[in-house]
Amino acid sequence: MISSTKKTFTIGIDLGGTSIKAGAVDNHGKILSQYIADTKAHKGPSAVIQQILFSVQEILGKHKQSECRGIGIGAPGIVDLDSGFVKHPPNFSDWKEVALAKAIRKVIPLPVFIENDANAAALAEVKYGIGIEHKNFLFVIWGSGVGGGIIMNQKIFRGPHGGAGEIGHISIDYNGPECNCGSRGCIECYIGQRYLSERTRHILAAQPEDSPPSLIPKLVDGNLSLIEPSIISTAAEQGDMAACDILREAGELLGYALASVLNIIDLRVVVIGGGISGAPSFVFTAVESAIQSRVLKPLKPGIKVLRSNLGNNAGILGAASLVM
Amino acid sequence: MISSTKKTFTIGIDLGGTSIKAGAVDNHGKILSQYIADTKAHKGPSAVIQQILFSVQEILGKHKQSECRGIGIGAPGIVDLDSGFVKHPPNFSDWKEVALAKAIRKVIPLPVFIENDANAAALAEVKYGIGIEHKNFLFVIWGSGVGGGIIMNQKIFRGPHGGAGEIGHISIDYNGPECNCGSRGCIECYIGQRYLSERTRHILAAQPEDSPPSLIPKLVDGNLSLIEPSIISTAAEQGDMAACDILREAGELLGYALASVLNIIDLRVVVIGGGISGAPSFVFTAVESAIQSRVLKPLKPGIKVLRSNLGNNAGILGAASLVM
Repeated sequence: MISSTKKTFTIGIDLGGTSIKAGAVDNHGKILSQYIADTKAHKGPSAVIQQILFSVQEILGKHKQSECRGIGIGAPGIVDLDSGFVKHPPNFSDWKEVALAKAIRKVIPLPVFIENDANAAALAEVKYGIGIEHKNFLFVIWGSGVGGGIIMNQKIFRGPHGGAGEIGHISIDYNGPECNCGSRGCIECYIGQRYLSERTRHILAAQPEDSPPSLIPKLVDGNLSLIEPSIISTAAEQGDMAACDILREAGELLGYALASVLNIIDLRVVVIGGGISGAPSFVFTAVESAIQSRVLKPLKPGIKVLRSNLGNNAGILGAASLVM
Repeated sequence: MISSTKKTFTIGIDLGGTSIKAGAVDNHGKILSQYIADTKAHKGPSAVIQQILFSVQEILGKHKQSECRGIGIGAPGIVDLDSGFVKHPPNFSDWKEVALAKAIRKVIPLPVFIENDANAAALAEVKYGIGIEHKNFLFVIWGSGVGGGIIMNQKIFRGPHGGAGEIGHISIDYNGPECNCGSRGCIECYIGQRYLSERTRHILAAQPEDSPPSLIPKLVDGNLSLIEPSIISTAAEQGDMAACDILREAGELLGYALASVLNIIDLRVVVIGGGISGAPSFVFTAVESAIQSRVLKPLKPGIKVLRSNLGNNAGILGAASLVM
């Protein structure tokens, strides 16, 4: 492998359900170049692997391949670190257990490291974000879905089989709506992208005619199927009542779920990243207040909910740091 | 300290909300003598400490004090291992943060070790029970309340502040009944002793007059205030429909809560001890089926729910093993 003291770089791949974000990252965590591709998750594993390979080659084309130290991939689902298998990523068609690392290495002769996407983003936080101040925290990715990375003593806590941290599938109501995972009432069912958008359409439809009109329909040019968390977030920033109510409620529900998580693993600090990390502060306050109201007494004094400062780059930076 | 190779013994104290169980335990985990006292939890910390001291002196009176290696205490609430403080044990009056180890040592000149009661019982399981076959498991105490001990690689997983494993306060319904802890819908509210007994009275009262009469009222001589889990369990063993329904439902709800716990910490094996560990097998089957139906796919193949074989001795054995 190339020594890290030279002017080398690493490729970080943030494999999402809708897009693949690839980036060349230098040894100081600076993103030198980026490329975004469709994931094509509905077309099955071969199509997704093709898209990853294509993204890697796009990045390699912009730099000296001989200076690339390796490829790190943050993938959804449960990842077997040793074998490089990615298992049951939600919203990926026909994907049971795929030897992703091997498939990449077969085509590109570089070291490949894979990690769960939430864990990879949590690692970015350890290296470049909140982790500089806090050694122990729960990282929450709140975007299309809800994922988690448990950081203890600056390291990922994986549990005995490597799959720990699936906080999106904490159920907050055992009689709640059915989740993709087969369970009921998972927090992801209430605040994941799809559900949050549906909930917004539902609330807009139920608004009394004499109430002030929401900004949301305007922001999507009347096409309500285009509603997504960033739209709700933009409306909330402009003081839209419906948007504020929706996000405050979502924040509260997330807080209730996190209170259970913190009771189990005894963490106090929560960092929220992902698509929603740009939302107005009151959302973070709602999460914190809800945790405070539900968590066991001895935990209350230390509870803190922070916004990730790494934004959308956390996935790429975290994936790249797998190689470093 | 006395060498463990001599014929020495250890005192294990299982501090419960209603009774204190003390035992002299030899180096092979054999209980040489036992003593049970009222906890007097409603009378405040001084009364409880007096009861512990009294129990210890009762045990010491039956053996050679010079052969006692020390005292181990399993206490409810959050325990600070280093300082020996016991914090906010539920159902103990006026007990905020008490330096329990210091208070005992002040009177009895022996080493004193304190651990959370569920963790202590889990340790007994590691040493003398299920742990001989399984290195990683979740130990559940199901009795007056619901507690948990997380065992990873044969050791207690404590989390960064020592309080991990409070599985009784996983909420299964964020709009559910209010819990003593201040939250809502904690699993303890549905299957803890007090709630299970109340639920039984409620179900008996609601039974249609033409349905076959339940055995439960007979087992408590008509005094329904005496209903407790062991009574329901006895009735269920005799095939009582109402008792079976209540315990099956409780098992299912526990399974729903445990599915969330296992998703977070990625454990597969659950061991159930405490007052309910004598219940008929269908209760354990109900817990296992409920977990299976709700846990994430990659965890399903390994899910196992086992009955603790240590029975009521787990508390004493685990507490004693803190000294060993």
